[in-house]
Amino acid sequence: MDDCLFCKIVSGDVPASKIYEDENSLAFLDISPVNPGHALLIPKEHYKNIYDTPDELLANIAPKIKKIALAVKEAVNADGINIGMNNDPAAGQIVFHTHIHIIPRFEGDGHNPWSSKKYEEGEMAEIAEKIRAHCNQGEL
Amino acid sequence: MDDCLFCKIVSGDVPASKIYEDENSLAFLDISPVNPGHALLIPKEHYKNIYDTPDELLANIAPKIKKIALAVKEAVNADGINIGMNNDPAAGQIVFHTHIHIIPRFEGDGHNPWSSKKYEEGEMAEIAEKIRAHCNQGEL
Repeated sequence: MDDCLFCKIVSGDVPASKIYEDENSLAFLDISPVNPGHALLIPKEHYKNIYDTPDELLANIAPKIKKIALAVKEAVNADGINIGMNNDPAAGQIVFHTHIHIIPRFEGDGHNPWSSKKYEEGEMAEIAEKIRAHCNQGEL
Repeated sequence: MDDCLFCKIVSGDVPASKIYEDENSLAFLDISPVNPGHALLIPKEHYKNIYDTPDELLANIAPKIKKIALAVKEAVNADGINIGMNNDPAAGQIVFHTHIHIIPRFEGDGHNPWSSKKYEEGEMAEIAEKIRAHCNQGEL
């Protein structure tokens, strides 16, 4: 993809602080880190996000998320690691090339990412049924 | 694990709004959702988090994250999907059984999860080198 920042990092046309590379994937530091050591893991091939990334490629990448999570944790002495993937602008996706955030966290670092809501009565069962149908699953 | 909430959901001892099940994994709705339809995908076997979950199991689960993301997106008409995994209390992990959050997002839903920082001069290259060493990679 000519206009994709991450494809340009893969091709070497744009520099990055690379931390891991193999045949299918590349990892480098996010230039706007949540905390220092915040890494991004991408497939070298261009896909937009999780929706169009082939199953085999997702399976190939998954163990590398763990490998990089452990390396980041040790390298920056983190107390925890968030793994994240934002799909679509409404979910915070900015670069439209599949990427996984690997974010080191520290006790008291002040990030408090998510707030939660309550379901109305009956709403949870209703939504579960709809999702189950889209998963092509019967009663569970 | 006798005292693990998610193991009890797998065994059926604790009820849950299940949405997907196969030989290795189970998905159900989070009872404190970021947004309605917020799902959790877990391996049936007990592991604490990404650090101790076997590579083959991570590879097995990855395509199911996509499957459930697509099902949730369609079922609740979401504008986007965040995938998340919290490892260790400092990263927000509350239940110590490997689980992946699949969170539907809507334009203007008010969640603004992460703020970012800037690296000091030279800090990024230094950290990248440390992580690379922990990944057992040479120059990239």
